[in-house]
Amino acid sequence: METQPKTVSEYLIRRLADYGVEHIFGVPGDYVLQFFQQLENSPLRVINTCDEQGAGFAADAYARLRGLGVVCVTYCVGGLKIVNSTAQAFAEKSPLVVISGAPGLSERWRNPLLHHKVRDFDTQLQIFRQLTVAATDLTEVENGCCEIDRVLAAAVRYKRPVYIELPRDLTTATCSCPRDPMPPPEASDPQALREALDEAVRRITRACRPVLIAGIEIQRFGLQQSFLEFVHKTGIPFATTPLSKSTLSEDHPLFLGVYAGAVGKEETRQAVENSDCLIMLGAFMTDVNLGIFTARLDQALTISSASDGSCMAFHRYPDVFLTDFLQGLCDADIVALSGRVPVDRPKLEPSPAFETRDEPITIRRLFVCLETVIDGRMVLLADPGEAMFAAIDLTIRHPAVFLAPAYYTSMGFAVPGAIGAQLARPDLRPLVLVGDGAFQMTGMEISTAARFGLSPIVVVLNNSGYGTERPMTDGGFNDIPAWRYSRLPEAIGSGLGFEVFTETQFAEALKAALDNSLVPTVIDVHLDANDHSPALKRLTDALGAKVRASAKLSE
Amino acid sequence: METQPKTVSEYLIRRLADYGVEHIFGVPGDYVLQFFQQLENSPLRVINTCDEQGAGFAADAYARLRGLGVVCVTYCVGGLKIVNSTAQAFAEKSPLVVISGAPGLSERWRNPLLHHKVRDFDTQLQIFRQLTVAATDLTEVENGCCEIDRVLAAAVRYKRPVYIELPRDLTTATCSCPRDPMPPPEASDPQALREALDEAVRRITRACRPVLIAGIEIQRFGLQQSFLEFVHKTGIPFATTPLSKSTLSEDHPLFLGVYAGAVGKEETRQAVENSDCLIMLGAFMTDVNLGIFTARLDQALTISSASDGSCMAFHRYPDVFLTDFLQGLCDADIVALSGRVPVDRPKLEPSPAFETRDEPITIRRLFVCLETVIDGRMVLLADPGEAMFAAIDLTIRHPAVFLAPAYYTSMGFAVPGAIGAQLARPDLRPLVLVGDGAFQMTGMEISTAARFGLSPIVVVLNNSGYGTERPMTDGGFNDIPAWRYSRLPEAIGSGLGFEVFTETQFAEALKAALDNSLVPTVIDVHLDANDHSPALKRLTDALGAKVRASAKLSE
Repeated sequence: METQPKTVSEYLIRRLADYGVEHIFGVPGDYVLQFFQQLENSPLRVINTCDEQGAGFAADAYARLRGLGVVCVTYCVGGLKIVNSTAQAFAEKSPLVVISGAPGLSERWRNPLLHHKVRDFDTQLQIFRQLTVAATDLTEVENGCCEIDRVLAAAVRYKRPVYIELPRDLTTATCSCPRDPMPPPEASDPQALREALDEAVRRITRACRPVLIAGIEIQRFGLQQSFLEFVHKTGIPFATTPLSKSTLSEDHPLFLGVYAGAVGKEETRQAVENSDCLIMLGAFMTDVNLGIFTARLDQALTISSASDGSCMAFHRYPDVFLTDFLQGLCDADIVALSGRVPVDRPKLEPSPAFETRDEPITIRRLFVCLETVIDGRMVLLADPGEAMFAAIDLTIRHPAVFLAPAYYTSMGFAVPGAIGAQLARPDLRPLVLVGDGAFQMTGMEISTAARFGLSPIVVVLNNSGYGTERPMTDGGFNDIPAWRYSRLPEAIGSGLGFEVFTETQFAEALKAALDNSLVPTVIDVHLDANDHSPALKRLTDALGAKVRASAKLSE
Repeated sequence: METQPKTVSEYLIRRLADYGVEHIFGVPGDYVLQFFQQLENSPLRVINTCDEQGAGFAADAYARLRGLGVVCVTYCVGGLKIVNSTAQAFAEKSPLVVISGAPGLSERWRNPLLHHKVRDFDTQLQIFRQLTVAATDLTEVENGCCEIDRVLAAAVRYKRPVYIELPRDLTTATCSCPRDPMPPPEASDPQALREALDEAVRRITRACRPVLIAGIEIQRFGLQQSFLEFVHKTGIPFATTPLSKSTLSEDHPLFLGVYAGAVGKEETRQAVENSDCLIMLGAFMTDVNLGIFTARLDQALTISSASDGSCMAFHRYPDVFLTDFLQGLCDADIVALSGRVPVDRPKLEPSPAFETRDEPITIRRLFVCLETVIDGRMVLLADPGEAMFAAIDLTIRHPAVFLAPAYYTSMGFAVPGAIGAQLARPDLRPLVLVGDGAFQMTGMEISTAARFGLSPIVVVLNNSGYGTERPMTDGGFNDIPAWRYSRLPEAIGSGLGFEVFTETQFAEALKAALDNSLVPTVIDVHLDANDHSPALKRLTDALGAKVRASAKLSE
């Protein structure tokens, strides 16, 4: 028989487990040491990383795959190191729980200068209020458990970060634990929903070229099956966005590609922009999603529904939410598209064969080679920069998983993200695509991966600096030190390392990595600094124009 | 003839140079690229680090030694990575200027989801308001230069961080540059100052055992000479605090030691706590300074003056500031101590000779060895943990410089700090003492040091984990992966590496490092996990009691 939790922190641990959490990422410190000890004696497993930043990114990746991820740190010197990774989770709707230790309430009398304190005792709380949908400092034992329920429910409801601050003398405070059943998700207003669905059905039925866009919330709220049900019932083709890439398998016969304005593939752009009824489900239209504003969408022809409300043409339904709206569409009486004019779908080219040549490897050929090995047993992680933009062009045929901070675009996500991803989905092996610049930020977390028996394959796209920036504005500030990435496994005492210059060497290194699934692999791929993927070229043209435009504007 | 700056950013660059800044630390990104290009064409030198966190710590160290340090980053994905290092600068009064790029004002129309945006366009500004004494987003060309003057003056006045956000379309906006002379420092109220000095002179004159404490503001405001003038005139002995260690040379005949309650040396504690008139100048009494509240100071017997006001016994003089107060003391008529009863001063032991033995090296012996090599051509940096607490016990005989985050105690400061320190003071060679846990956070910045021709000697105190925490609460979370630190120079392509187990090996490695002043050196010192310095033992006893007390309290 399950024992009842007796303390606030036991209750917190139990609740996290209820939500399916099995791992907690973090770095200990004296204000949170007791809680780490309680974690060690709990069913949750502590994964401590080299630096808190790594823990933040790992927990974010875990949250994206599991529905909830947790990072646990000490007061200020820990918490303030994960402001950026929490901001990323907020921007990209990842349900991340930040737990921070804090000075005990009994230590705060007369406002002393306790170590790690910045300005006031609530400085850290004030900062996290900017980055979360719910935040609490547990200053009372009585309602501690209710507060925990409220805050965790918000993370799950809004798929965004929440913050819990645990004063160390409350960690072991006994409490009466309500442990109510988990609160039901917020429902749409029934009348508003009916009206919105009626209107949507009218618009879809009279359209000749309807197109669906599956946004990231389809993945966050686990709506893939409903989405596909609607696709199958109506025959309406669909696209994804950079952030929601691979949410649905890309070898689906009705898949149009990843839509990103002029940054994406031309045929996808044509199909989406020529639609006379664009149904965007769970998408939020960021500048990267919109190809840095190269998208040409006619708002009068759009239907959009997300977790925070819905929109048709120029009017809003604030109380109609994605889950109900999509279910309503599935249940509605909509004629299949067969009687209407279907859009032209880009032909899915056959899986390319890759004949290695003994020539210097290029970005384009590297991605052709990768496409031949990616399968349903992999999770692909891409760091912003060439790695991410080239990866968006990849066709992921199998139900593989793709993770990238495609909106917030913070560098340094992918290597620590792979730790979170493989723990969240131990059936998948992480394939990490990361630039040399991003690797130097957080890449040493491969040692954390090795320590916990994980086996990411880390492909370092080594073009001697910040390759995304060179085409915009170049200078010495885009250069970085030339690490010998393939030697790092030796220096951290674990893993395989390869240095490759040619296609043949790359294919061999990749094969060796795939054959050894017990340790991490680092493959240092030397690329020409002027070699860019077509996607990056399209992107930097757009971004460079912005940089130059603002320079000109102010001259 | 000097040309007049024509744009807001040229004005900013000129003003920074006026304040003595020669280097700027940062990582570029598209919202700040143009400013990086302007920096590259300016007399300021850009030092780009592996990760923004490293730039933040490097700039903090530079600020401590130069009077102003600058870190320059891109919007959110850069700025939010340096929240912790900026918090440290705030907590420890370091005059750090944070410059962040931002989306152009012309890009913000209708509040689009631009990449890197978190919640609102001012999210980052709101966060930095919590951590700075002045913050501005330059949204108007007209008063841009005045804003720059206001904000930089605040950094210099309060010795705390300030924040400047540069929308990218204002970077090159032309402006009328007032370029007023730099504003004079804020002065004390003359009447209040006279009253406070009269009272102070009375108290000091009638005391039998007056003792001075030189706090960190003596260093921050460059008051060492005035302080020593007062010491020489009156014969009053002085102590420092952990944060202000080495502000004054420790071989001064009137130096009592570093005061830190029970955590410091017993003879220093006796001298300070038995004083009948304790004159604290520029000190702020943190818990670490107070030996985690083991200090026993009688407030009725204290005089305290700092940059934000003064205090005697239980009453305050809010408009009397340190610089004026100290000058007033120097000018006052105070009888030298010779006629009164002097305190017992701890005898300065002769510089120890170090005979190496072919035995496993211990913490205690390692510091004995270090004491024989530290001289006036070094800057010593210590990371929180064993490295810092053992270093506080070191006697620094020469006017060497000691830098450590002794109050905020954020791990990961020392290696990137060494970059800032050596650029600020190229006449000094950095000797870095860092635990293995802290090294894994930011230690790879040695590659930045190598890239810019710097030569820190990095001593990794390798005790297989978070040694400071083990005596408090131990568990698997205190273990870290076993890197082979001495192999890292090979992996980054520069520097010397040594792995040492014995005293002889350590002395040899240290000699080799000292003999090669062109590249960084990493010395991996294997220590027993249960070997602690006396200072750390005193500290963890005090901290462990706190952890246990709060556990008990709440049971």
